[in-house]
Order: sequence, then C-alpha cells, then structure tokens
Amino acid sequence: MKIITISREFGSGGRELGKRMSDILGYDYYDREIISAIAEKSGFDENYIKDMTEKKLRVSIPISYGRTMYYEPYINTNAEKILAAQSSTIREIADQGRDCVIIGRGADVILSQYNPVNIFVYADMDYRVKRCLKYSENEKEMSEKKIIKKIKEIDSARASFHSFLSESKWGRKENYNLCINTTGMQIKQLAPIAAEYAKIMFTKKNSK
Amino acid sequence: MKIITISREFGSGGRELGKRMSDILGYDYYDREIISAIAEKSGFDENYIKDMTEKKLRVSIPISYGRTMYYEPYINTNAEKILAAQSSTIREIADQGRDCVIIGRGADVILSQYNPVNIFVYADMDYRVKRCLKYSENEKEMSEKKIIKKIKEIDSARASFHSFLSESKWGRKENYNLCINTTGMQIKQLAPIAAEYAKIMFTKKNSK
Repeated sequence: MKIITISREFGSGGRELGKRMSDILGYDYYDREIISAIAEKSGFDENYIKDMTEKKLRVSIPISYGRTMYYEPYINTNAEKILAAQSSTIREIADQGRDCVIIGRGADVILSQYNPVNIFVYADMDYRVKRCLKYSENEKEMSEKKIIKKIKEIDSARASFHSFLSESKWGRKENYNLCINTTGMQIKQLAPIAAEYAKIMFTKKNSK
Repeated sequence: MKIITISREFGSGGRELGKRMSDILGYDYYDREIISAIAEKSGFDENYIKDMTEKKLRVSIPISYGRTMYYEPYINTNAEKILAAQSSTIREIADQGRDCVIIGRGADVILSQYNPVNIFVYADMDYRVKRCLKYSENEKEMSEKKIIKKIKEIDSARASFHSFLSESKWGRKENYNLCINTTGMQIKQLAPIAAEYAKIMFTKKNSK
C-alpha cells in the first residue's frame, strides 16, 4: 500500500497539489471527508470540529515553577475527543489497504509505520494571501490584514496539533521526504513532478 | 540565463545531484573549480582555503555586556579575504551569462538578483555516514564517530558562512525552492526529477 501525506501551510496550494497528485496516480483522496467521519464518531458538528482543529485546539494555562511563571499548553476535553476520533479515522483509512493521498491532520505521524511519502508544501506570505483572495470562498471578501491573521492562526493551530502527536516539529524539513515551495508557481505544473517523485520513492521503499 | 544553486548537508549527495542535473540539462557545473579560482585570486593555497571554509571560518570571542557574558562571532582577516575572493568568483561565473549549476559557497545568496532556482539537499545522519563510508576517499578510513563529528563541523561551518552573507538561516526551507531529503534514495533516480522541476521553475520565472 502506498500512502502520500501532504502537510501544508495554509494558502500554499498543498490541498490542490494533493488532489492533482491523487488524480494523476489514481489514488484515493482524503481531505474534508475526514471531518465528516470525525463528526460521525465524536457526535460533534462538522463546523465545530473544523473550528476546533483550526483555532481552539490548544490553550495555555499559567503555571508557576519556583520563581518562574510559564505557560503550560493544555488541551480541553472536547479537543481530546476530536483528536482521538481523527486518529482512529486516519488509521481506518489506512486499514482499507488502498493507495491514497491524505491531506494534513497528522497523517504523516499517525501512519508512520506504513512508511508514507511525506510532503510539505509552503510558500511566501504574499503568494498565500493572493491564493486565498483568488480561490477561497471564505477569504475572498476579507481584507489582506485579516487574511494574514487567519493564515497565521491556522498554521499555528496545525503546528500545535502536530506537537500533541509527536516530538518532531511541524514544518521542519527533516520530517518530510520533500518540501515544495509553491511561491509564484502553478500547482498544475508541479503536480506531475511531485507524483513522479512519489513513484520513485515507493519503488525504492518497496525494493528494500 | 538559468542558474541552479545546490546547498547541501555534508554527505547528503547534493554534489552528485547537482552534477547529474548539470549533465541532464547541459548546464555548466561549478564546484571545486571555485576553490582553484579563489586560490588564484587570494594567493592562498587550495588546501588552506578548503580548510578555512570548512572549519575555521568563524571563531567566537568572549564579550561581556553588563553582567552577561556572551560570545561574539568574529571573522579573521584571512577568512575575510577568502570570502571576498569567493564572492567575486561566483559573480564572475554569473557574468559569463551561461546556464549553470553551482554547488554551495553561498551562490544562492550572492546571485539572488539572477533569480536562481535554489535547492537544498539533506538526509538523516545514518544515511550520510553510510554515503561517506561508501563514496568519500577522505572518510573511508575514518570511524563512524569521527565521520559524524566531521559532518557536524562542516555543516556548522556552512551555516556560519551563510550567516556572514545573509540574515536568512542556512537550511531553512523558506530560503529554497525545493528541499530534497535523499535518505535511502539513489541520487541518479532523483536527478531527472529535480532537473524537470528546475525546468518548470524557469519557464514560470521567464513568463513573468
């Protein structure tokens, strides 16, 4: 079974890249489907789940240690339930045994025993803002300043979520097989190469 | 003119990747030739230059500031001369106006106005040690422990050199168009894809 995970900065085009790669390779594709499955498992509303995983996953509570005050990351109970449902959903996807592309949601960490090809997609802030204005229904009407704020919030939530799953840091190149900077690029041009790269990776992995 | 720069962790196969890419694309290739040109310009011996740029580029001198002691990075005079000769050598390469692949030596920063495609090549320590044992004449006879020490020293010198040229940090994915993790891979399989990627990047850059 071949699994490709796409981790991505918000607005970088990682989702489009993953979708196009799955089309080229004929793999199953999982993105927002995961949210629906979590909703079913956890009983929470899909919008609440989306909101929770994008914004409110992590809160900080002040702790004093000796004379030093510091903030301990703390995860609330609903978030815990959602994380558990998310992990089991992603494991169930893998259990189907079909080749697939999974977008975000810690699949790189959760499925590490399957030796996935892990890709990280990123871009300059300017490019990401432009992409949001061009493609995203939710961000089209927002000011540039608000979009930047939203991008930072979502990336920070993604990093935070990752830190619950793994000691390794979200977006650190060492955790990925390939890191693609999409700044100024068209995703449809990049997708065939990224797909080709993944194919070579799998040949190598399977020949071990 | 199309310029590809390859920055790389020691032992990751970045040099081989760059050489193969230049062969595939029919570009000029610059690596150790740069050392010879520096020697000619600066009057220093090639081995001294290599040693200086790999090991002794940066020294730290203790400074006290208020009650705090810290170490200020300091660059010695010979190193300064070598850095200057290196920068002018790299600029002269670009001045020839021919498509080329340049390995390391800050070409990504020095030639930024030419809009090069910047690639960073990296790998797990285990893989890099194995590559050193397999391919490098100098490291073949060394113990694993010594190789790791050497790898860390050289990488640290490369990072240090980069910090003299730019505020941006060596190896931070944001500074590159593509970051390739070569762990477990054969470079000759990766080279055609990396070359293809660069071609697409240039199409895009030229169409702007």
